[in-house]
Amino acid sequence: MWKKRLKQIQPLSETWVKLAKDRVDNLVKPKGSLGLLEDMAIRAAAIREEEYPSFDKKKVVVFAGDHGVATEENISAFPQEVTGLMVKNFIDGVAAINVISRSVGADVDVVDIGMKESPSDLQGLIRKNVVRGTGNIARGPAMTVEDAERAINVGVEMAEKACDQGFSIVAAGEMGIGNTTPSAALFSSLLPADVFDVTGRGTGIDDDTLGRKIKVIERALEANKNRIKDPVSALAALGGMEIAGICGLCIGGAAKRMVVVVDGFIASAGAFVAMKLNPLVKEYLFFAHCSQERGHRVFFRKENIRPVLDLNMRLGEGTGACLVMQLIEHAARIYNEMATFEAVGIEPGS
Amino acid sequence: MWKKRLKQIQPLSETWVKLAKDRVDNLVKPKGSLGLLEDMAIRAAAIREEEYPSFDKKKVVVFAGDHGVATEENISAFPQEVTGLMVKNFIDGVAAINVISRSVGADVDVVDIGMKESPSDLQGLIRKNVVRGTGNIARGPAMTVEDAERAINVGVEMAEKACDQGFSIVAAGEMGIGNTTPSAALFSSLLPADVFDVTGRGTGIDDDTLGRKIKVIERALEANKNRIKDPVSALAALGGMEIAGICGLCIGGAAKRMVVVVDGFIASAGAFVAMKLNPLVKEYLFFAHCSQERGHRVFFRKENIRPVLDLNMRLGEGTGACLVMQLIEHAARIYNEMATFEAVGIEPGS
Repeated sequence: MWKKRLKQIQPLSETWVKLAKDRVDNLVKPKGSLGLLEDMAIRAAAIREEEYPSFDKKKVVVFAGDHGVATEENISAFPQEVTGLMVKNFIDGVAAINVISRSVGADVDVVDIGMKESPSDLQGLIRKNVVRGTGNIARGPAMTVEDAERAINVGVEMAEKACDQGFSIVAAGEMGIGNTTPSAALFSSLLPADVFDVTGRGTGIDDDTLGRKIKVIERALEANKNRIKDPVSALAALGGMEIAGICGLCIGGAAKRMVVVVDGFIASAGAFVAMKLNPLVKEYLFFAHCSQERGHRVFFRKENIRPVLDLNMRLGEGTGACLVMQLIEHAARIYNEMATFEAVGIEPGS
Repeated sequence: MWKKRLKQIQPLSETWVKLAKDRVDNLVKPKGSLGLLEDMAIRAAAIREEEYPSFDKKKVVVFAGDHGVATEENISAFPQEVTGLMVKNFIDGVAAINVISRSVGADVDVVDIGMKESPSDLQGLIRKNVVRGTGNIARGPAMTVEDAERAINVGVEMAEKACDQGFSIVAAGEMGIGNTTPSAALFSSLLPADVFDVTGRGTGIDDDTLGRKIKVIERALEANKNRIKDPVSALAALGGMEIAGICGLCIGGAAKRMVVVVDGFIASAGAFVAMKLNPLVKEYLFFAHCSQERGHRVFFRKENIRPVLDLNMRLGEGTGACLVMQLIEHAARIYNEMATFEAVGIEPGS
């Protein structure tokens, strides 16, 4: 499925971009004075190809997965079981993502795409498990290429479901103890970049653990070097199920002409795989914020991307992406509701 | 009135700051992982001294004034009449501030504090005119010290009105063709800083006009040098009515333990005068964003302030401040609604 969707992705129409830019330039304010809000409105309008784009209906999809490398290599500040406990909190509505999504008016889909265990009593959890936790990347592949493709398809499916439900914007979030490790491994392999430059403290590890984490990632790259031939085989070798799901959400969202907001460091790793598969995906993506996880800045610099926010956040879950979905909603309202110079009888400035 | 309020401003209670920080650190997320949202929640809770601070009710106060320097020295991309035309748009609800305030759920007060003309048919305009436009600062003082104090009192009054209406957060916005010129003059005098470093393109002037604007500000500093003895005499000599109003809003808001969000470059000039009068004011202020107007960055660096957003905005009106009022609302919801580690049976990480 995902390969078909990947081919369906269209570049943004130059006509629509120009139309939207002209409209923004005629609104009653100095040209360019709303900065990134203008850029967001223009691109969002061109993605939707709608005269009055609306992003009142917003959804964040949180993919949850476990990581063999976290179970076996002790590279996280939290034990692997916390993935499941946090997913329970998401379902109970008491985690940061629940509070922020309620506050911005976004729905939340929580998807078990690769959790090691998922209690049967979690009502509302979307059960799309591909594998019960990945393999330890320090010793071998995270998953087979077939499983990676299945997980990408889950993401595509989630985007299409959101589209069918009438959402025109969707955010990619994640939960998975240890998942900055596979993300850093993927960035190191695909950017490429030194492991040291893209490896950070995740949920808050100390210097010793950070040193071990860097070595683990170096071992992962070495152990998997013969498996990596293209973006999908890199994802399978080094990635995680939630990362693959996010890759699919970006592909599916772009194919359906949806605005896709990418949360933090881990979500960006998934989005980056999608961009590597088809550079046109990027035109549909908004990178929400620059995470405090240091590799994120390296990624943005190398790929010439400007994230919207820089708030020292590093939680994930989709929290930063929810804030930016709302900023895009505001930007669209500006586009739809502001008067033009002509309508109010003011001469545009220089 | 303003002098009495200035003395009433209390430092934030260390007990409350500690209490709020402990609470945030016990929420079920890695310590510090929500970055600035955590800092905002802690400071807002300590300002309010409330167990469950709420910022659902938000208000932006837009002060409008005209500038003799704009009428006489040709330093803006727009003619002075545009102040009145834009105020009409604010009342009609079709300007950027109207769209954004509606979108974030904030009320708007539009105050004529120093407009040259203000049509009698503008229903809803709050009429607090102190003078019908300031004097040309390139040749003499913008206003008398007495008028500056009257305008500060208008701002204090607007904060107290908002407080009486049950608002716990208020944003400072402005409209006034030419008002980056008095703002740059004030920053140059009070920081202090070279005129060149704090003078930018305002609504979008060309290189020739920018060169003239710099010379006008240098003349203003020279023409008024004997009048400047303290922050209020500097404000009177170099400032503007809307800048004085914002200074008062900051003082009045801080005295009433309200959260005050400062919009862009011009609003920061008003807030800076208030900070110079009493450094405690700063504890109640959130600087919304870093304007594209280049002097703003100089101010933030010199005063060691981190603005919340950096979106290349330079419109004013209170647009950036509205976005940040909503972020503070989200931060307070996180503070009030997230579960603690203890409640969900997870061990805090390192």
